[in-house]
Amino acid sequence: MKTELLYSGKAKQMYATEDPTVLWVEYMDQATALNGKKKVQIEGKGALNRQISSLLFEELNANGFATHYLKTLDANTMLVRRVEMVKLEAVVRNFASGSFARKFQTANLLPLRPAVHEFYYKSDALDDPFINSEQAIALGLADAATIAEMHRQSDAVNAYLTARFDGIGIDLVDFKLEFGTLPDGTLILADELSPDNFRLVDQATGQSLDKDVFRKDLGPLQPVYQTVLDRLKGAQHV
Amino acid sequence: MKTELLYSGKAKQMYATEDPTVLWVEYMDQATALNGKKKVQIEGKGALNRQISSLLFEELNANGFATHYLKTLDANTMLVRRVEMVKLEAVVRNFASGSFARKFQTANLLPLRPAVHEFYYKSDALDDPFINSEQAIALGLADAATIAEMHRQSDAVNAYLTARFDGIGIDLVDFKLEFGTLPDGTLILADELSPDNFRLVDQATGQSLDKDVFRKDLGPLQPVYQTVLDRLKGAQHV
Repeated sequence: MKTELLYSGKAKQMYATEDPTVLWVEYMDQATALNGKKKVQIEGKGALNRQISSLLFEELNANGFATHYLKTLDANTMLVRRVEMVKLEAVVRNFASGSFARKFQTANLLPLRPAVHEFYYKSDALDDPFINSEQAIALGLADAATIAEMHRQSDAVNAYLTARFDGIGIDLVDFKLEFGTLPDGTLILADELSPDNFRLVDQATGQSLDKDVFRKDLGPLQPVYQTVLDRLKGAQHV
Repeated sequence: MKTELLYSGKAKQMYATEDPTVLWVEYMDQATALNGKKKVQIEGKGALNRQISSLLFEELNANGFATHYLKTLDANTMLVRRVEMVKLEAVVRNFASGSFARKFQTANLLPLRPAVHEFYYKSDALDDPFINSEQAIALGLADAATIAEMHRQSDAVNAYLTARFDGIGIDLVDFKLEFGTLPDGTLILADELSPDNFRLVDQATGQSLDKDVFRKDLGPLQPVYQTVLDRLKGAQHV
C-alpha cells in the first residue's frame, strides 16, 4: 500500500510504500508542454503510458537490462525499485528534430550517425540547461564513471528500442532516459518509457506518434498513444 | 609581403602572402564585447596583444607544442602557418566565471577540478552556440580523433599556461583556444594567445587582468595588458 507522497510531477506521482526499497508510481492523465505553460487533462493517457512503460520495461528486464521496474498493480500504477536519481536527463538522438534541429538549423529528421548523446541538468531553478559531461562532473552532479555508464546503457537501450520500433514500422527519432543508483551504487534505468519521452515517426506515413501531437496541436493524443501500444503488443517480444 | 585580405575580424586582419603556406596577421587596436555591440578603438592594444601572443607562442614552440606561429614582423604583425581552421572554439575553465558562473549560478571563481572543457560552434548565423562533442561529430564539424586531439592539446596548453601565469602571481581562470589542420592533417594551435581570450586574475589583489576590464568598464585596458606583458617578460621562460 502507498504511504507518503514523495513527488508530484507533470505526468506521474510517486509514493513511498511499506517496503523502503519500493516506490508506487501512478501515471496521471495530465499532458504538459512548453515547460508547463500548456497543460491539459487527457483521459486515458496515464493508463496508456503505464501500459507502454510496463511492456517496454518488462522486455528490457527480460533482455538483461537493469531497470527499476518491478511489477504492474493496476491500470495506472506500477511498483519500482527506489533509487537515488541522477540529476541529469540523458537524451539520445538518432535523427535531428525538436530543439536540436532548431538550435543547429538542420533539416528535420536529418540522420545523426553515430547517435548524439546529450545531458540536461535537472534543475527547475536553472530551467534544465544543456550541460556537457565535464561541466556535470565539475559541478558534482555525477562522477566520470557514472557518466560513462549512463552513456553505455543509453547506447544499449537505443540499440534495443531502435530495432524494436523498426520492427513495427516506426522510427525512433530521439528519446530521454533517466537513471538512478541503488544503495550499493549500481546504476539502473528509471523513470518511464513512453511516447511522452520518445519522439516516434511512422515509417509509412511520416506521422508523429508521440507527444509532438500534443505540442503541435496535430489532433487528439489518446488514439496515437493507443496505436503505439497496439503495435507493440501486436509484435510482442517477450 | 601581404597580398589579398582573407579575413577581417574583431581584433585581427589576416592576409595571404606570396608563400601559399604562410599568412600575415595584423593585430588591430579594436576592442569589442557583447557580440560586437560594444566596440571601441584602444591605442596600443593591437601591439600589446601581438607581443603577448608572440611571447607565448614562442615559448610553446620552444617547449614542443605544435602552433601556427612562425615569426614577428613588426609591432602589430606576425607570420603564421596557413591552416584549415576547425569550426569549434575550445574553452578550458579552471575556475567558474563569466557565462559558466551565470548559467549554473555558481560562486565566481569556484575551482573546477578537473578543468572543464567546452566547445562552441563557430557560426555567426547560429551565434556560436555551446555544443557537445557528439553533436559536433554528427554535424560533421570535426571527427572523433580531432575532438580527442583538441582535448589533449588543450589540457597540455592549460598545464603549461597555468604554471606560467602562476609563476607571475596570476590565476589563469579560463581561456579560449582555436585549432587548425595543416594540409597533412596535423592539428596545431592557431589564433592568438592574449588577454582578449584569457581570463586572468591577480593573485594578490583579485584584480582582473584581461578583457573583463573592458567588458565591465573597470578602467582603461591598455595599462592592464601592459602589466601582463611586463610580468611575462620579467620572468621569461625561453
